[in-house]
Amino acid sequence: MKIQSTAILGAGSWGTALAALWSSDGRNLRLWGRDEALVEQLRQSRENPDYLPGVKLPESVKVTSRLSDCADVDLIVFVTPSTALRTIAGQLGQTSVGEKAILMSCTKGIEHGSGKRMSEILQEHFPKNPLAVLSGPNLSVEVARGLPTATVLACTDIDRATELQSYLGSTKFRIYTGDELSGIELGGALKNIFAIAAGVSDGFELGDNTKAALITRALAEMVRLGTMMGGSTRTFYGLSGAGDLVATCYSRHSRNRRVGEELGRGKSLEQITASMQMVAEGIPTAKSAYECARKLNVETPIIDQIYSALYEGKPLRQAMEELLGRDQKAERL
Amino acid sequence: MKIQSTAILGAGSWGTALAALWSSDGRNLRLWGRDEALVEQLRQSRENPDYLPGVKLPESVKVTSRLSDCADVDLIVFVTPSTALRTIAGQLGQTSVGEKAILMSCTKGIEHGSGKRMSEILQEHFPKNPLAVLSGPNLSVEVARGLPTATVLACTDIDRATELQSYLGSTKFRIYTGDELSGIELGGALKNIFAIAAGVSDGFELGDNTKAALITRALAEMVRLGTMMGGSTRTFYGLSGAGDLVATCYSRHSRNRRVGEELGRGKSLEQITASMQMVAEGIPTAKSAYECARKLNVETPIIDQIYSALYEGKPLRQAMEELLGRDQKAERL
Repeated sequence: MKIQSTAILGAGSWGTALAALWSSDGRNLRLWGRDEALVEQLRQSRENPDYLPGVKLPESVKVTSRLSDCADVDLIVFVTPSTALRTIAGQLGQTSVGEKAILMSCTKGIEHGSGKRMSEILQEHFPKNPLAVLSGPNLSVEVARGLPTATVLACTDIDRATELQSYLGSTKFRIYTGDELSGIELGGALKNIFAIAAGVSDGFELGDNTKAALITRALAEMVRLGTMMGGSTRTFYGLSGAGDLVATCYSRHSRNRRVGEELGRGKSLEQITASMQMVAEGIPTAKSAYECARKLNVETPIIDQIYSALYEGKPLRQAMEELLGRDQKAERL
Repeated sequence: MKIQSTAILGAGSWGTALAALWSSDGRNLRLWGRDEALVEQLRQSRENPDYLPGVKLPESVKVTSRLSDCADVDLIVFVTPSTALRTIAGQLGQTSVGEKAILMSCTKGIEHGSGKRMSEILQEHFPKNPLAVLSGPNLSVEVARGLPTATVLACTDIDRATELQSYLGSTKFRIYTGDELSGIELGGALKNIFAIAAGVSDGFELGDNTKAALITRALAEMVRLGTMMGGSTRTFYGLSGAGDLVATCYSRHSRNRRVGEELGRGKSLEQITASMQMVAEGIPTAKSAYECARKLNVETPIIDQIYSALYEGKPLRQAMEELLGRDQKAERL
């Protein structure tokens, strides 16, 4: 079955950027948003001013707030917040989605309590469908502006991975195929926590040397926890792990880095999230990853300090000092 | 033998920063520079305005242009340009350096023709002495300003590694010990070539996504070539490999990144090097690494393109297009 129609669920910045990217070359595309007012505005103005100003969606993209409009397609792409994915998957399960439709997650997160990856939640609701994930260093605004970008895709059905690669990829959006869903998803989820830490370092003006040391330890921590959660070391050192980590830790476009930076400059988490239109996935993921690390008995000093600062009221300065102030010893990754 | 006196050979920005750092706590320190006028200025004003403006060296640091003044110390630190190290080691060999003096390289480079690391050159001249290397994400200006920094040190004599760690380390300059000289030196040398490539990406304004993809491939290329040259994978993923790579690719203080950025903005290599006081080690290292990769038959697409652009007159735009324009396929690190 050749892919001929696609629905993107989630009209935030990444969902809208993917709709803008994939609407070229005559692809049959639908974009679903939960918020009816936003959907109406998008339908009228073809622009998403709060999430991705300046990017116009062509008329060919059908914008809708009814999930049933997205049931009869060959490819369903999840770009919802991680905390909303289970609910939306459940609602979609009540529509007439076919068993051959591919369900692809572009959402970066880990579920609270269960510790499940997004594709695992999709599998619960659609046990017979092929599942895919797409993740990499893909800042929305650059993708929407047509700057060259590379990403990684994996699918439970290998033949369909190649099909997705050629259907969704282009010279400006190069897709490399990976051989596992787990590592790709875990790298994308965990790096958002480390980006908050890197942002705190920026906010405290600790300099490029400290930030680089922190990111090196973050990569080691990603590998340590991520492999215990089922990903391969090789995947974490690739585009969807190390690549996404450095993009998010250094880009001024990164929300998670910005949350950390503003915390470092003295704002409270409440002030920051109230002033942000968008979800910073590192905040819920810090909780899920902390829970997983405790269950699996993995040492995760960076995640622990960010968790304590976000959820237990630990002063940020103290958290960073404890993180950076360990004894001189042999380098241990 | 406890370390009681140290000579730093090379009064560029890194040598001067290390002198400023280590001159605290009453260490007996000498700083050697080849340029007599610079040495005289440093001696008088206690400042190195061309290389490290605003940083004062205390009177306790003895500044000299005579190598013989540096012979009778317990620790000799090489911070010369890589292309000058062999000559200076040869000249030092004619003085009365004792067989127990530790020779430590902080120079990042690979010798043209021989493909030798800096510590290998030192070993030729001082076959009986303990040898050490120190390398990591250590931008000079931040170290001189006392911003927290971490680095890696290894020594052929393990007991002396621990001694160096406690003698040279502090809460602001944390030293972790590594278990091999080769990987530490190779990571520090190779990353400068990749920083030129990252700078070119900045100069062309290709965005954070492209830069992150490039750095991911650079890390894989460092591991591929570096392991064939005798380093361990583990070392390359640590502070002296991945850590130094990201620091240098992203910092506005990095000379090598700046060379790439100015090339990307259209300046010629001659214009750039003429306007720079300091050596950008990535330029000679691109040649050495290219030679090594050919001998060892290792695939090094980034090094090859930078080599072609710097030494064979290949248009930079074409080099970057060939680098970024490869076919979509499976991710291969």
